[in-house]
Amino acid sequence: MIEEIRVAAGAPGLREITAEVQKVVGAAGLSEGLCTVFVRHTSASLTIQENADPSAREDLERWLARLVPEGDPLYTHTLEGPDDMPSHIRAALTATSLSIPVVDGRLALGTWQGIFLWEHRRSPGARSLVIHVAP
Amino acid sequence: MIEEIRVAAGAPGLREITAEVQKVVGAAGLSEGLCTVFVRHTSASLTIQENADPSAREDLERWLARLVPEGDPLYTHTLEGPDDMPSHIRAALTATSLSIPVVDGRLALGTWQGIFLWEHRRSPGARSLVIHVAP
Amino acid sequence: MIEEIRVAAGAPGLREITAEVQKVVGAAGLSEGLCTVFVRHTSASLTIQENADPSAREDLERWLARLVPEGDPLYTHTLEGPDDMPSHIRAALTATSLSIPVVDGRLALGTWQGIFLWEHRRSPGARSLVIHVAP
Repeated sequence: MIEEIRVAAGAPGLREITAEVQKVVGAAGLSEGLCTVFVRHTSASLTIQENADPSAREDLERWLARLVPEGDPLYTHTLEGPDDMPSHIRAALTATSLSIPVVDGRLALGTWQGIFLWEHRRSPGARSLVIHVAP
Repeated sequence: MIEEIRVAAGAPGLREITAEVQKVVGAAGLSEGLCTVFVRHTSASLTIQENADPSAREDLERWLARLVPEGDPLYTHTLEGPDDMPSHIRAALTATSLSIPVVDGRLALGTWQGIFLWEHRRSPGARSLVIHVAP
Repeated sequence: MIEEIRVAAGAPGLREITAEVQKVVGAAGLSEGLCTVFVRHTSASLTIQENADPSAREDLERWLARLVPEGDPLYTHTLEGPDDMPSHIRAALTATSLSIPVVDGRLALGTWQGIFLWEHRRSPGARSLVIHVAP
């Protein structure tokens, strides 16, 4: 089963999408299997991170923004704006696809794990994600 | 087929789990397919790296510890100890899930590839990994 | 369906392999499914990145080469040459496996996405990739 979902993060940072992904897994009606999430962009990415304390997500965003800042004189790819090239690098350092086992019809995430869309652009539109679920 | 395994790394660094994963693949009894390994934590991760010379693994651990050190004044998520926030960042920069093709009943790893649990915390307990094998 | 392909990048940097992967997907003859690409090396990796402007790829390569330079006194794993240990670290920070949904017999990539082999060594031979396609 394959389904596309669209998610608007609205701003840079981590936006949880666990419920949206679990909904697709539930609709697939499988007891056991594998769920793969794929983001169809090169300036946003995916991560599985702590879903409890929001400060962990905020630190992740600020740490990566400091490692890969805007305005680095190394960049030659600057036509699409100062936040474009850092977005590509941040996406390359994180994940474009994630695969999560399904057990008893649910994502087999650990207690503190959530699935997140990691938005890297300043004024993003909605992002397209494709979710594949199979035995 | 889905199976959970528990692995205790005991200390920060790379702990090879290739044999444990291959054992699950063997039990699945498939000639050809795909094996996905998923770690159910946000302060430990996965990597496929050189399995021959231990110095490569040690350099990986020391390089990442230097890039993402403890005690960075940027961190606000500090309640769970000084090694917690660096663990989340190190996990985000490496892998939470890995998929490896299976050929002739064996993981189709390259000659020098091993699968590793990358432990990021100082005093970790056993880690839970879920392994999915399907045609 | 599983197929091995060999790709020679010839030099460090990103070499697009979307057409080669799509060819395997086409040969699998599936309308809907999942395609997993796996690189059988620890000094080359995979990424999905912008396929339009080559300057984005060049900036990615130069940025990662600056973050993980040759000759870092931290390295103890130096017997295989000055470009070996940086290759392992660069591979660990990017991807060894990527999974892309297949829709209507084609990789469900976004408009600007291409699949790339990311070569990290200075004088590489051909690289072996294993591609798995299943419903």
